[in-house]
Amino acid sequence: MHPFDEAIRLQAAGPATPDVFTGVSSPAYWNMVGPFGGTTTAIALQAVLQHPALLGEPLSITVNFAAAVGPGEFRLVARPLRTNRSTQHWFIEMTQADAEGGQSLLMSATAVTAVRRKTWGQSDSPMPAVPLPQDCSPAGYPDSLAWTQRYDMRVARGDLPRLMDGSGEDSLSRLWLRDNPARPLDFAALSAMADAFYPRIWLRRARLVPAGTVSVTVYFHAGAAELARSGQGYLLGQAQAQTFQQGFFDQAVQLWNEAGALLATSHQIVYFKE
Amino acid sequence: MHPFDEAIRLQAAGPATPDVFTGVSSPAYWNMVGPFGGTTTAIALQAVLQHPALLGEPLSITVNFAAAVGPGEFRLVARPLRTNRSTQHWFIEMTQADAEGGQSLLMSATAVTAVRRKTWGQSDSPMPAVPLPQDCSPAGYPDSLAWTQRYDMRVARGDLPRLMDGSGEDSLSRLWLRDNPARPLDFAALSAMADAFYPRIWLRRARLVPAGTVSVTVYFHAGAAELARSGQGYLLGQAQAQTFQQGFFDQAVQLWNEAGALLATSHQIVYFKE
Repeated sequence: MHPFDEAIRLQAAGPATPDVFTGVSSPAYWNMVGPFGGTTTAIALQAVLQHPALLGEPLSITVNFAAAVGPGEFRLVARPLRTNRSTQHWFIEMTQADAEGGQSLLMSATAVTAVRRKTWGQSDSPMPAVPLPQDCSPAGYPDSLAWTQRYDMRVARGDLPRLMDGSGEDSLSRLWLRDNPARPLDFAALSAMADAFYPRIWLRRARLVPAGTVSVTVYFHAGAAELARSGQGYLLGQAQAQTFQQGFFDQAVQLWNEAGALLATSHQIVYFKE
Repeated sequence: MHPFDEAIRLQAAGPATPDVFTGVSSPAYWNMVGPFGGTTTAIALQAVLQHPALLGEPLSITVNFAAAVGPGEFRLVARPLRTNRSTQHWFIEMTQADAEGGQSLLMSATAVTAVRRKTWGQSDSPMPAVPLPQDCSPAGYPDSLAWTQRYDMRVARGDLPRLMDGSGEDSLSRLWLRDNPARPLDFAALSAMADAFYPRIWLRRARLVPAGTVSVTVYFHAGAAELARSGQGYLLGQAQAQTFQQGFFDQAVQLWNEAGALLATSHQIVYFKE
């Protein structure tokens, strides 16, 4: 089984409680103090996708990270709040057992799933021109982070600065990425990749300050069939911040497939120190 | 009382149920089939701001619109899900009585409030150069929409096309806006203004197709003191889409005050027909 499928594998609690799932934190995607946040987003989405009442496909998901996910088992509750003719509204919570035997909230999320229809279409965000993946350098992450080994990342610009010397000038990164080992693209993988960009402040300041995502939103602009057509190819990801103020900054992301289709856009608000 | 304060006025149900509030839909902000969505966002935020357990100030809010809000009374439940040292996570639901005497879900939302701290800061999104408000034309909305009369909007570019003749070329609008009558800026007003841009597809296509926001997220980049310093001045708002696909498009918004501070950024995913 691919490590990503293992990371997002959920066990349904049973037909009497269709909203409840359990899973196990993946050491293969470990970040500094918990699993890579992208897997947490993908897990929230996966609960929706596995829910027997699901209508349509993912349109948007917003994940709020309330506490670090620990090792071991976690619990998810994914509730369909309202089902319309072509949209469905979801609330998702992730918890883990605490020392007192209760459940402690780690993450809350909302999602909207929807039935896509054939309409007029137009993309006004063409993929930026960058060198081919084989002509870009592998991302310069330390080997000590497990999750970065789970992605094949080829950086066209905005790699993690080698010298954290305060010399940063902008916050723009462009890089090719795909699962490592390669894996056919689907909504869960795409939602995780939307979070696969290190905190923009490290680039903007060329300083390694403490930082962590507080809330992330992903909009999906393609259906399952188009994601499947992207296969195991690379996505081109672009990430950039607009402003850094009083302990928080934003981070905007676009993800195109190799054919140049904009598959997802994403935004997050990130905590930083100093 | 200012019509905006009336529109977001909430009655706490009482000390035994601190999460529960009621309010009344505002005819003064009526849009086509319900109140202007910006007031719904502001109402969700207002419930958090009035909650006795509130920690800090708004950092982010995501509102999912599940059904049109009708006239008359509505009910809000705003639950603090988890309170950390400097952040607090919220879930908010808005309902109205249905024909069977139950409550029907109209809107679900999550929000994060946070304590802002003095840190290094930098804005990389300077306010675009546009003519002064007095040198811009009032927005060309039909008088039949109540909510558009509640804003003083001066358009620098990207006004609602006069001829809906399919001649559109881009989706970029820049306009000055403030409450009408003027009102000191606060978080609730700012959250409403983030949604005060007509659907981008009307501009991109120069065609008036059915469209409505499904989900909107607002990130706040300033504290209450800075909002207060903006006073009753105009904000410069910018709105633009990235892509239109299979019945949905995105819309990104920035809001600066007259001094050029980026106070909020916002994103939404919008349904459209045809």
